[in-house]
Formats: sequence, structure tokens, C-alpha cells
Amino acid sequence: MKKHVVAIIMGSDSDLAVMSDAARLLDEFHISYEITVVSAHRTPLRMVSYARNAEMKGMRVIIAGAGGAAHLPGMVASLSTLPVIGVPIKTRTLDGIDSLLSIIQMPLGIPVATVAINNAGNAALLALRILALSDSQLQEKLARYQKRMNAMVRKKAAKLKRVGYQSYLKSA
Amino acid sequence: MKKHVVAIIMGSDSDLAVMSDAARLLDEFHISYEITVVSAHRTPLRMVSYARNAEMKGMRVIIAGAGGAAHLPGMVASLSTLPVIGVPIKTRTLDGIDSLLSIIQMPLGIPVATVAINNAGNAALLALRILALSDSQLQEKLARYQKRMNAMVRKKAAKLKRVGYQSYLKSA
Amino acid sequence: MKKHVVAIIMGSDSDLAVMSDAARLLDEFHISYEITVVSAHRTPLRMVSYARNAEMKGMRVIIAGAGGAAHLPGMVASLSTLPVIGVPIKTRTLDGIDSLLSIIQMPLGIPVATVAINNAGNAALLALRILALSDSQLQEKLARYQKRMNAMVRKKAAKLKRVGYQSYLKSA
Amino acid sequence: MKKHVVAIIMGSDSDLAVMSDAARLLDEFHISYEITVVSAHRTPLRMVSYARNAEMKGMRVIIAGAGGAAHLPGMVASLSTLPVIGVPIKTRTLDGIDSLLSIIQMPLGIPVATVAINNAGNAALLALRILALSDSQLQEKLARYQKRMNAMVRKKAAKLKRVGYQSYLKSA
Amino acid sequence: MKKHVVAIIMGSDSDLAVMSDAARLLDEFHISYEITVVSAHRTPLRMVSYARNAEMKGMRVIIAGAGGAAHLPGMVASLSTLPVIGVPIKTRTLDGIDSLLSIIQMPLGIPVATVAINNAGNAALLALRILALSDSQLQEKLARYQKRMNAMVRKKAAKLKRVGYQSYLKSA
Amino acid sequence: MKKHVVAIIMGSDSDLAVMSDAARLLDEFHISYEITVVSAHRTPLRMVSYARNAEMKGMRVIIAGAGGAAHLPGMVASLSTLPVIGVPIKTRTLDGIDSLLSIIQMPLGIPVATVAINNAGNAALLALRILALSDSQLQEKLARYQKRMNAMVRKKAAKLKRVGYQSYLKSA
Amino acid sequence: MKKHVVAIIMGSDSDLAVMSDAARLLDEFHISYEITVVSAHRTPLRMVSYARNAEMKGMRVIIAGAGGAAHLPGMVASLSTLPVIGVPIKTRTLDGIDSLLSIIQMPLGIPVATVAINNAGNAALLALRILALSDSQLQEKLARYQKRMNAMVRKKAAKLKRVGYQSYLKSA
Amino acid sequence: MKKHVVAIIMGSDSDLAVMSDAARLLDEFHISYEITVVSAHRTPLRMVSYARNAEMKGMRVIIAGAGGAAHLPGMVASLSTLPVIGVPIKTRTLDGIDSLLSIIQMPLGIPVATVAINNAGNAALLALRILALSDSQLQEKLARYQKRMNAMVRKKAAKLKRVGYQSYLKSA
Repeated sequence: MKKHVVAIIMGSDSDLAVMSDAARLLDEFHISYEITVVSAHRTPLRMVSYARNAEMKGMRVIIAGAGGAAHLPGMVASLSTLPVIGVPIKTRTLDGIDSLLSIIQMPLGIPVATVAINNAGNAALLALRILALSDSQLQEKLARYQKRMNAMVRKKAAKLKRVGYQSYLKSA
Repeated sequence: MKKHVVAIIMGSDSDLAVMSDAARLLDEFHISYEITVVSAHRTPLRMVSYARNAEMKGMRVIIAGAGGAAHLPGMVASLSTLPVIGVPIKTRTLDGIDSLLSIIQMPLGIPVATVAINNAGNAALLALRILALSDSQLQEKLARYQKRMNAMVRKKAAKLKRVGYQSYLKSA
Repeated sequence: MKKHVVAIIMGSDSDLAVMSDAARLLDEFHISYEITVVSAHRTPLRMVSYARNAEMKGMRVIIAGAGGAAHLPGMVASLSTLPVIGVPIKTRTLDGIDSLLSIIQMPLGIPVATVAINNAGNAALLALRILALSDSQLQEKLARYQKRMNAMVRKKAAKLKRVGYQSYLKSA
Repeated sequence: MKKHVVAIIMGSDSDLAVMSDAARLLDEFHISYEITVVSAHRTPLRMVSYARNAEMKGMRVIIAGAGGAAHLPGMVASLSTLPVIGVPIKTRTLDGIDSLLSIIQMPLGIPVATVAINNAGNAALLALRILALSDSQLQEKLARYQKRMNAMVRKKAAKLKRVGYQSYLKSA
Repeated sequence: MKKHVVAIIMGSDSDLAVMSDAARLLDEFHISYEITVVSAHRTPLRMVSYARNAEMKGMRVIIAGAGGAAHLPGMVASLSTLPVIGVPIKTRTLDGIDSLLSIIQMPLGIPVATVAINNAGNAALLALRILALSDSQLQEKLARYQKRMNAMVRKKAAKLKRVGYQSYLKSA
Repeated sequence: MKKHVVAIIMGSDSDLAVMSDAARLLDEFHISYEITVVSAHRTPLRMVSYARNAEMKGMRVIIAGAGGAAHLPGMVASLSTLPVIGVPIKTRTLDGIDSLLSIIQMPLGIPVATVAINNAGNAALLALRILALSDSQLQEKLARYQKRMNAMVRKKAAKLKRVGYQSYLKSA
Repeated sequence: MKKHVVAIIMGSDSDLAVMSDAARLLDEFHISYEITVVSAHRTPLRMVSYARNAEMKGMRVIIAGAGGAAHLPGMVASLSTLPVIGVPIKTRTLDGIDSLLSIIQMPLGIPVATVAINNAGNAALLALRILALSDSQLQEKLARYQKRMNAMVRKKAAKLKRVGYQSYLKSA
Repeated sequence: MKKHVVAIIMGSDSDLAVMSDAARLLDEFHISYEITVVSAHRTPLRMVSYARNAEMKGMRVIIAGAGGAAHLPGMVASLSTLPVIGVPIKTRTLDGIDSLLSIIQMPLGIPVATVAINNAGNAALLALRILALSDSQLQEKLARYQKRMNAMVRKKAAKLKRVGYQSYLKSA
């Protein structure tokens, strides 16, 4: 079995629908990852040992998603020297602005690389950019990914030009 | 030496100016407390052991102040069954709305009793109300404190009536 | 009949769906409570007498939920020396940020222990932590509750590992 | 002595600097008022009796200023049928957005006529508009006041035209 | 025909669902009103003449509802000396916080009595409190209205006590 | 074929439902436009050349819609000297307040004429006002458009008067 | 005397310090403008006639600055078919977020081209971009202005490279 | 000369006071960097070529600071496959909430690793964590840095215990 190099963790299994976007992207790039539930508040000691052992297990990047008073990404970052990417999960009451602020506003010394609310896909792409620094094949794959996005936009622009906006909207 | 029953902890010594308001009030009510710096992010393991040992040491209430991505109160609450009171510290960039949301928006299972931004005095008074449940003398002191506040407002109202608002403003 | 030790009050019966979470948790811990509607604005005198008599009736903690210009928790706290826990109810227009600020931003002298928006369950757990200070059995129950939460997260993590995220999401 | 028809009340004497703007305007219009400190939180019973007696004492409008978890205007409105005007006082931590929301977001049944943050002057002018409904002299004075404001703007516009913006800024 | 004493105006007929709450309450109190659409932006001159003629037509209070960049209440207040009550209409994009701020933050000289977002009912009740200052019958009706609200809360509290919260929730 | 004078561009085809409102209005005024997808982030070089060539192609106004971290309008404005109108697209997580701020808060030197969230129709009307400065026929059409809006409001007001608010609401 | 083609208006002379940035930029580009105070609230009729006559007087763009419940830009836009540029003025209480929302959130039909808070300079540059559509000399001047900004950044970058960041900071 | 592996870029030299914190930290860890001004809005083509050449020049991480409508980090990320770290600069009008949202809310495909407002030091530490993945010496230095922070907190806690909070505050 290939060794996992990315950890995808989340505070609750209700975050899985969002966090699975990260897993799907890593699958697409053939990067091996572990995905699990680690709650800062319900399993604090499990979180401590998970964060402290991550590097030894071969992990190179940790992606941590959490909502509300979202302490998981920051706590994991304080217990490891690996780069930690935080994904603020949208909440029912405050739309995730609580998650965003409690992940990003870390004090000097303990950085968390925060991405947009619910954007676990971008967390995976950020992990890939980091891993690609020492993996030229991955670097090329990322470049191709960006070209594909580019081509897709151009294709949509061409279709919009061809069919007009009314037809485009109907076909959407 | 009297045993400490309240712990006043804070994420950084820059929070001390605010958190000392809690100490002053406990002093006034002759309640013994310990005041110290415990950083969730810079000393995570110290925080874990501090929280886990607090009850055994005789602590009955923990007052925790923190600013920004304020994880200390919630993490301590997850590592103890004592009542934890959170004080959101005002921050230079977002006025403490980040501290407030990252302290109060805890998930079901781990409550933090949050007070107003920078209002460490109220955190102490909340601790006193809790301690007073099993200390009738303290209960009486609290009732007297509330009466003194009441009297002070009435005194100010009387002065305002006597001197008029212009003189009152000048004498302030 | 067992004497009630917790009061669960709310500004309107439309808050009951949220506030009943507190009742359910107290039921689970076999703590006797009274649950009723007390409106600061529609029944101000009833509120005054309710708050002033609570302690004499044997209440030890008051849980008060309110939405919008939420004055109930703060007013009750000003009329009693019991610990008062405020639950900001989510509103249709401002998502409960109005409720949150009008409950938590109390002036020095009158603390309200505020929990997350709509999180009446945590209000109950906070009340239990307070009551447990003089009830070692309750303390043990709380510790077991925290262990059960911990076990449930680990169980979910184990399932996620076993079935993979795709199956987990489908079975959710 | 002329009977007071307007009550200007505030939660704390620290609000007096703002609330005195209302007094000054009423002085200017020769409307008799009472100005005093009534704290919803520190003197709840005084507030109840103040609000309940206001009408009998001949008051016709109540202007209430408060900051933070600002409960005074709404509570007074619930204890009287007089029109109550709320002045949200700017706060050090949240700039008065807390005061504003906790004054204005009243439930159906209990209105508070809320004005801009710190704008006690407008509270007085609103009281004057209300009193003028049954006082044609006052109505005329208000019309003249509006004309004076109008003339002052036109005078400033004329000066700006005459001297140019650079000189105008220097002379300001 | 009875002369109208209250004007209920709104910026768009899409505001009517909200503003009709004001009409219903005035109907209940047998107060005669005119209800119409006056757009500050689409019919600015109609707005100017409407506001300038309101007093002459016998109007005593103007209730104005508007959403988004809500200029109607403030502009009408600047063109009349009648008391103007503003109702911020909830918007699809910003939940009415835009409406609220653009109605309430008026400069010194031109007050708008602002009520809660979408709370046209409270605008009507505020108008009634104002009219009642010179109508003792109306004053009594308002007192009875407040008593009915009070009774209704007590009735709900009694039912909740009788049936328990589970049955109450099911019957709601 | 008539030369295009307005460019309607958007960051993603998911913005088309909103941005098509601009197209419809320009159609109504017989102004020729190009509508296409240009992503600042997915097709940065296409954006650079599109913006740099717009003027040479005969474009006179650029309408650019974008959501979230909305960089398209500002980047296009920095690469052209044409007037650029920005349309903040409502987002799922933050309601478009992110789009609004990242479009409007441009530094000195590079203006973006920003309109309300999702209001692509107003972007088109602003473009028409600009084009009308050198097209008196268009100026007249705009004046007629404003009169039609005015008439429509008056018609609705007449209907509301005729049928009453209850019937009006039912027929809506 | 050269005919004025831009109107710079503001709600209060206290806005002049900000709005004079627009005047300075127009001076620099030799564009003739009128600068005056027109208050929507204190001089509503003057505002109506000013807006209705602007086009006839030869104005081609109106720049309107206002703070708080900022109604001037939107009202002027509703009374004219000229392009209107709104400048939200920073306020003491809410930092200008009130000004921004009450200027930009205009309903369909009446656009206001809004720029960043306090950025009157960008309002002038937007006016220049609009005027340049029918003035090729101005177009060239704008292009040169953009080049100068570009050169200035490159010069700063060169200096930073040459002296290092420590010296650069000291010399600033 | 050692090859630069980190690029520190900023939209304006007024951001240098904040961004120099990143430089100082990289100096402390003996990591070679280039620090320069690259404005997305004033030098868009320079930005394009800078971003496209960064990797070829040997850069491994790009730290980009910007304020207001902060487009630099996102645009650079769209023109490179290197990890880009965004630093939202605090602004005078909106405290940096505009900078934060316009940096972090990137669409799927183009991640920006965002850190707290003004926290350029954490941007540097995040870059170091990334570089340390292929540099075990750096990894050790980071671990020592975290230990030093830990020790410093413990030292402060010890001093606070020794001298008491009053003396501590005086000596601060």
C-alpha cells in the first residue's frame, strides 16, 4: 500500500460532504491520503496524538475542516510543524463567518493556511502545489489541470457566442 | 494558604490588563484564585495538563480569556467538566468580533459561558454567582454588591437633578 | 414531587422548539426543571416577580432564551443573584446576531453566561456543570457523557476508515 | 414650575455627554423635560416604577439612551403606552452596532422609535414633531428650524462658490 | 368619509405584503389611513408633493417602508414636519441590513423613527401611541391591547405547564 | 453587422442568469454588445488581451460581473482606460458581501463603477447613461424609460386605491 | 469662462476635505467643474432643482458624496439621466458601511456608479474615463496618467531593491 | 549569491511596514528571499510576467500582501503553480475585512493560502513549514522555534506567579 502523504481531518462527520471534495481531487491526482474524523472538542486527546504523530507517519500536509468555533486547524498547527490548511465549514446560523474567523485569525507563531468557506477542493489543490515542489511530475499535472480549466472557460465562451445567451441559459 | 477555587488563565500576557479586572473583583470578594498564562497555541500540552488537573487541584470555575482565533476557553472546556467562562479579548484588527465568535460558537456537548468583549469583571461576577450556590455568605455579599450598584446609580441621578446636566458634565 | 432546580424560560412559545433541547438534556440527567414562557416585553411584571422569586423557590440556575432585541436573560440577571445562562435564538431577519449581541454585551455588574446561537443543549450542559460542583454523582455522569461523545466520534472514524468516504456519504 | 412633558433617561451617567444634545435642543424650543439616570440593569425596580408613572406625571414622550446590551428603551416601552424614542449609544468595542440592534429589533407589540447611533439631537427633534401635533406654535418653530438649516446650507454653498474649495478648507 | 390621519406609503408594491400589517393594525383600532405606493426613485416629484401636502391633508403620522438603498422615509421626513416612521424592508441580498442603515442613520436635523426590519405592525403601534397622546379613548384601547398580549402569554405559559413541552410542540 | 459598443463579461457561466439582465436591457435600447465569459483566475492571459483590445475593437463601456474574490472588474479597469462597471454577484456563502467589497474597494488610480449586488440591469442602465452623453436619441429613450417607470408606479398606486390592499395582495 | 462639465456636490461641508480630492484631480486634467453643497435632507428642493437643471447647464457627469443615510447620489440619479457617481463618506460611528450600502443598493431603474469609501479621487477618474469617450486628447492624458502610476511603482521597486527594506522603511 | 526561494511582494510600498515582518523572520531562518512592489492594478503586466517567471527564477513560495480590493495574491496564484500565501493588509476604512474577503474567497481551481489580517510573520512561518518538507535542518529549526515560544510563555507564567499581576502590569 502506498504511504499516505496528506491527512484530511474534520471535526464532525457532518463536514464530510464538504471535505470529500478534497478527497476526490487528491484521487484525481493519484495522491494517497488518509481521511478521518478528529474532533478538537469531543476527542481532544485523540487530536493531540494525531497531530503529534502525523509527521512521523509520513504525512506532509494536513487539511483540517471545521465549523463554528472551529479550533481543529489551529490546534493541529500548534502541535506539529507540518503545513496545515484550514477549511471553514459553512454553518447554519452565521454562514461560516464564525468558522472563517476562528480558523484564520491565528496569533504570530502558528500559521494556518486558510481557504474559502466550504472550498475543500482548493485545500486539496493547495496541498498539491506544496507537494509538487519536490515532485516535477505532479507539477506538470497541475499545469495541465490549469490548462484544462482555461480550455473549459474558452469552450463555454465559444458556445455562448455560438448559441446566444438565451439558448445558453435554457440548455444549462 | 487558602486553596485556589478559581483559575484565571489567558492566552498571552498582553491580555493581562483586561483579565486583571477579574482578579480585582475576586480579591474584593476574598475568593482565592490562581492567575496564569496558558497558551492553547504556544503551549498546547501545558494547556492539556492544566485543564485536566484543574478539578483535582480544587478549582471549581475556570475563567479563560483569549483574542483572535481564541481557542483557549473551548479547548479547556473540552478537557474538563468544570464550568468554563470565556472572555473575548478585543483585537486590534477586528475589534474582538473574531474572539467573540471563536469562543461562543461551540458545538453541542462542550459549553463555554461567554461574557461581553473585554468584560473580565463580569466573568468574575459570574464565577461568584456560581460559587455562591453553595456559600450563603457569598450570596449575601453578592446581594450587597448589587445594592451598592443600585445606590450609586440613585446617587448619580440625585446629583444630576441637583446640579443640572451642564454642571454634571463639567464635573465629570 | 422533586423540587425544580433549573428554570428554563423563553420570551415566546415560538422559541420552544429550540429551548426544548435544554429540557431533553436535563431529563436525560434526571435534573428537575420548570419550563415556561416569560416575556420581558409582553409580561414585564411577571418577569420581575419570576426573577425575584426564583431563588426562594429553590432554583439554582436560570436558562433564558430570547430572540431579536433579546432582553429577557439580562433583565432576569439584574433581578436575581443566580447564575443566568442566555440562549440567543436565531431570527428570520438577522440570523440571531441581534439576539447574540443584545444578550452578551451586558455592562459590568450583571453577567449573562451566553452560549452559541440556538444551542439550548449547551445551556443545559453548562447548568449541569454548575450543579455538578456540589453533586459528585452528577459530576460522574457528566464525565461519562463526555466519554460517550468521545466514543461516538471514534466509532464514526472507524466506520469512515472501514467503508470509505463514498459509502459513508451514501449511508448518511 | 412648568410641568415636564419629555423624559430624557439614560442607562449610565457616561451616556450624558451624548444625551445632553437632546436636552440642549429641548431647551432651545422651550420644552420642559426631566433628565435622569435610570439603569435597566443596576436599578431594575426604579426603572419599572419610573416607566409606569411617567404618563401620570404628565410625560408625553420618553427618550431613552443606552449602550451595549441596551435594554432600557425596550423595557420602558413595555411598561408604558407612551411613545418611546431609543438612542443607541456608541460603544468602545462594537461601535454601537450592539446598542442599535438591541434597541431596534423589538418584537411585535412593543415599538421603540429608534434614531441613529449617538444622535440624541434627532431624538429630541422627533419628540418635538410628536408634541407639535397638538401645539401649532411648536409646529411653526419646527418649520422655522428647518428653514434655518436650509439657509445655513445655502450660505455655505455661497461661501464655497465665492472663496473656492482650497480657501474654504483652510478657513474650516 | 372619515379623514385619514395616517399615511402608509411604500417604495414598491412588492413591499405591500409587509406593509399591510400596519394597515391591519390600524383597522383593528379604527384609525383611518391612506395606503399607497410612492417611490423616492421612480416618482421623485410625486414623493415631494406627497410629503409636502401630507400635513395639509390632515395626516398626523407618516409610515414609510422601503428596502435596499431605502431613501423614502428620510426624504419624506426632510419635506415635512410630521413624525415619520421608517420600516426597513428585508432584502433578498443583504437581509435588510442595507434598508435598516439607510433609513436610521439620518443626520442631525431630520429624524426618522425607525422600527425593526419588516416590523410594519410596530410602526402602526408607534403611530397609535403618538395619536393616543391627544385621544384618551385610543390610549385606553392601547392599554387593553397590551393587557391582551400579556394575557395571551400567561395562557400559553399555563398550557405549557399543563400539557408539557412535548405535547405543546406537537400541537403547535 | 453593427459594431459592439458594450462588452458584457463575467467570471463564470454560472453568472449568466444574472448578467443576462444587462443584455436584455441593452437589447431593449437597441445597443449592440458582446457577451462572453472571461475568467480573471482561470483565463488570466485571455483577460489581459481582452481588456487591452476592448477599446480598439470599438467598445466604449465594459460591464464585468464576478462573485466571491471578484477580481475581474478591477483587473480589466487596470488594463484599459474605458469606464468599467462592476456587478457583484451574490454568493452562496456570504450573500455577495465578499463580491461587493472585492469589486468596490479599489485603490486610487483605478476606478470601478460598482452597482448593487446582482443588479446587472442597473449596470446596463449606467452604460446607457454614459453612451447617451454623445447620442441624443438614446438620451430621449432614457428619459422615456424613466417616465414609463414613473407611470407604472402611479398605475399601481391607482389600482391599490381602487381595490384596497387585501384584493391587491390576492391578485399579486 | 469655460463651461462646467462635471458637478461635484456633497451633502455637507464636512465632506469637503474628502471631496476636494476629486476637484484636485479634475484641475490636474484641466476639466472644468462646479463644486457645491447640496443637502438631500436639509435642502431637498434645492437638490431637486439642481439635479433637474444639471444637464441643461451643460453638466455631463455628477459626482455626489454623502455619509450615513446617504440619499444624495440616489436621489440625484432619480431626477436626471446623467451618469451619477456616488462617493460614500466614512462616518464616525459605522466607518462608512452605512454610507456605502445606502448609496449602492439602488433598485432596478436608477443606477449609481459607486466607488470605494472616501475615494473621491477615483470618482474623478471615473468621470474622466466617461468624458474621454468623446475627447481623444483626454483619453491620451488618461493613458499617460496610468503610465506615470506604473512608472512610480517600478521606481519604488527599484529603490527597495537598491536600499533594502530596512533603509526604505526608515526613509519613508 | 544565494538563490532566492521566497518572493515577498506587495501591492504598494505603504504595505512594507507590515510585510517586512515576513522578511525579518526569513532572515532569522537564513532563507533567501526577494522583496519587491508589484501592483496588480498599477502594474498589471509587470505582475503577469513576475508571476509567470517566479518558478523559473527558482522561487518556491510566493508571499503576497495587499489591501482593500486585494487582487494581487489571487492573480499571482492564477498565473503560477507555486503555493501562494496571501496577507490581507488592514485598511483605514474597513479594518481589512475587505482585504481578507477579496483574498480568501477564491473560486475552485486557484487556491490562496490566506493568513490573519496584517500577520505577515505567519505568512513567513507558513512558507518555512512548506520549505522544511524537503529540508530537515529547517524542520529542526522550526521545532526549536516552537520550543522557544513555549519556553517564553512558561517564563512569563513563572514571572506572573512570582511577582503577582499588579507588579507584572506595572513592569510591562
